[in-house]
Amino acid sequence: MADSPYPKHAVRPLVGRFLATYWLETPLALKQAAALIAGEQSSGTFVSVPGETEELKNRFAARVESVRQEAIVRCPSLPGCCVQENRRPTRFHTGTVTISWPEENVGHNLAALISTVQGNLYEIAQVSGVKLLDLTLPDSMLQEFPGPKFGVIGSRKAVQVEDRPLIGTIIKPSVGLTPDVTAELVRTLIEAGVDFVKDDELMANPPHSPFEVRCQAIMRVVNEVADKTGRKIMYAANISDEWDAMRRHYDTLVSLGGTCAMLSINAVGPIAAKAICDFGQLVIHGHRNGFGMLHRHPALGIDFVAYQKLARLIGVDQLHVNGIDNKFWEPDDSVVRSIQACLAEQSGQRLLPVVSSGQWGGQAFETYRRTQTVDLLYMAGGGIMAHPRGPAQGVRAIQDAWSLAVAGYSLDQAAKKSQPLAEAIAKFGK
Amino acid sequence: MADSPYPKHAVRPLVGRFLATYWLETPLALKQAAALIAGEQSSGTFVSVPGETEELKNRFAARVESVRQEAIVRCPSLPGCCVQENRRPTRFHTGTVTISWPEENVGHNLAALISTVQGNLYEIAQVSGVKLLDLTLPDSMLQEFPGPKFGVIGSRKAVQVEDRPLIGTIIKPSVGLTPDVTAELVRTLIEAGVDFVKDDELMANPPHSPFEVRCQAIMRVVNEVADKTGRKIMYAANISDEWDAMRRHYDTLVSLGGTCAMLSINAVGPIAAKAICDFGQLVIHGHRNGFGMLHRHPALGIDFVAYQKLARLIGVDQLHVNGIDNKFWEPDDSVVRSIQACLAEQSGQRLLPVVSSGQWGGQAFETYRRTQTVDLLYMAGGGIMAHPRGPAQGVRAIQDAWSLAVAGYSLDQAAKKSQPLAEAIAKFGK
Repeated sequence: MADSPYPKHAVRPLVGRFLATYWLETPLALKQAAALIAGEQSSGTFVSVPGETEELKNRFAARVESVRQEAIVRCPSLPGCCVQENRRPTRFHTGTVTISWPEENVGHNLAALISTVQGNLYEIAQVSGVKLLDLTLPDSMLQEFPGPKFGVIGSRKAVQVEDRPLIGTIIKPSVGLTPDVTAELVRTLIEAGVDFVKDDELMANPPHSPFEVRCQAIMRVVNEVADKTGRKIMYAANISDEWDAMRRHYDTLVSLGGTCAMLSINAVGPIAAKAICDFGQLVIHGHRNGFGMLHRHPALGIDFVAYQKLARLIGVDQLHVNGIDNKFWEPDDSVVRSIQACLAEQSGQRLLPVVSSGQWGGQAFETYRRTQTVDLLYMAGGGIMAHPRGPAQGVRAIQDAWSLAVAGYSLDQAAKKSQPLAEAIAKFGK
Repeated sequence: MADSPYPKHAVRPLVGRFLATYWLETPLALKQAAALIAGEQSSGTFVSVPGETEELKNRFAARVESVRQEAIVRCPSLPGCCVQENRRPTRFHTGTVTISWPEENVGHNLAALISTVQGNLYEIAQVSGVKLLDLTLPDSMLQEFPGPKFGVIGSRKAVQVEDRPLIGTIIKPSVGLTPDVTAELVRTLIEAGVDFVKDDELMANPPHSPFEVRCQAIMRVVNEVADKTGRKIMYAANISDEWDAMRRHYDTLVSLGGTCAMLSINAVGPIAAKAICDFGQLVIHGHRNGFGMLHRHPALGIDFVAYQKLARLIGVDQLHVNGIDNKFWEPDDSVVRSIQACLAEQSGQRLLPVVSSGQWGGQAFETYRRTQTVDLLYMAGGGIMAHPRGPAQGVRAIQDAWSLAVAGYSLDQAAKKSQPLAEAIAKFGK
């Protein structure tokens, strides 16, 4: 390689390849469509150009690693699919393909990595469906993206809770409460027994509840209780904001003894979110609002498995996964897969799955049956505040539900063992 | 309002409302579905909670402003749509609805605005289709988000081009060229007559072409030519990277006399992108790679009209719109609408539409016929570099195409007037 024209700036050999797996639907052979994507997303353009030498192609081209054929369908999932002009295809191959890229195409650059695995490829006319299913980085890249700093273990340690899910709640109503009223509500919730309180994603830094004022009011309560009981609950303050403001909020939170900041990952975006995570002083609660836009159609966007991999590269510690029997569109199977994806170890860390949406404790049984884990942050909003006998009984109902679920009881059996749970069932159950 | 419990932190009265228009598909009456979204995205939760007073609801609740019914369809576009358990709806109303929010719900906070208009609402089970079509901010908010600093006029001024589209090109192959080879290629392109050169979105800061080294090599060429000819072409260097690196790249570019930086908006994300735009020293070239993921399905995501509004809030000056007869999936009608959206004035500024994808000059005729504008950055990659008689004739062909299109010639007529264009037609035409 003495004659290599490439400068020697790399401090380590960049020999690894990163892999992305896609679900595709295409009138072409799957392998051919995958090759098109590989070309578009590495050195190709629509005609050959000078400079595109064989050496360069060999070194930098993306490669199709594997193809797995599934069904053939008759109807395209996405519009605009076209292979030959004036010919409408009538048979579409579906299946998964894995494409790999040399890590030296992107270096240590999350934005370049994202543009490579989920850039223009969604525009390709020769596919009628494309969804990013998974993303695998070589160890050499993972060393540069160490991922969550706190994860499951760090989150548990901060609130001193072992062997059961962390019980959390969202401050509701989302918008409109003054800082003082909010702080009093947080006092009620802490006294009710929660481990974790968070701002709604719609509550950030509005003039009627400026971040600093609200954070001071709430952390005063959190710290007071901690001084009394020796246990500080986690307040995930929503720092999502413009860059300078977000940094200021982070510092405010640290200076007030906060332990956790919440980010709306999609609204903030990968790079600012990563820069915040990189500060490393606070557990980061990753809210996925807007994920439905990227995920709800089965033939387009990104699957949660790939999404949580990106969230790890960003460095979040806790990530929303929706919940069993949720009020949204998502089926339980998908929620279970998301929980499992978060709890898989990567670089020695696991993401804490944040279970939420219409939860009140009754779903503990099915959640535990299907995931066999208590490594969860189990969030209930209305399920706590609207319990017929008040928030303390709301928390108690959820705690009882979880301990009885783990002990092997069904919901019906558990209702006979716990009065607060029986009351929750009467109000929230079907 | 003497007894108002709300603190008086706002420096200006926050009386405006911002509006979002959605296309919806739902088994409910459109108005009812819109009211659900309004509730979910302001003060609602799945049960009533204490604190959700009438006063608070009146002040902070989102409001359905208008509803326009379209067709009724039989088949849901998105999965998971459900209104009543165990009942599959069979009739779905479609149409557009406009929802408004008080600006005091979000304050001056782009992340909170995004979470409000494109957050959890995509998850709502009662809709089987939801797409954000448009976003309208009151003047009071627009004052805080002034939008593009340079836009069409600033971009033209920087390259001293009036009365015709800026002709631009993308450095290809995307990855693999060394900085020195890249700079020589840029020299060829400048000598060929382009006004604008950009990095590919896949080329950012890899070890084989580190940003600083590449930028030095290219800007040396750009400055040399500028010293000779008195005209500095625009090099849109792709600064997309992690936050600290991106800031460093920006400063490098400024110090080398650069005039334009490119950002992959979706890969970088709104907040870091806005922070970069706010520096205000460089024209920002907004690349939309990944937009297909947000846009390609007609019943999900975000339409370009709303997307370019968000891009303006971020502050980009130039925005990709694809091109007529492009190599991707997008139909021409959609491209035309995108160009028109960019060229609408907001806060006294217009975005410069970046036309690209398989362009070689032949599309100038239809582009001009349908948009009647030359306020475009017309990008050709292969169309310039792969012209049979070299890049200078490639640029000449495009310039000829545009001046003949504006003069009212058809492509066939124009071919007889311009030899370089005739040669381009022979190679790239159908």
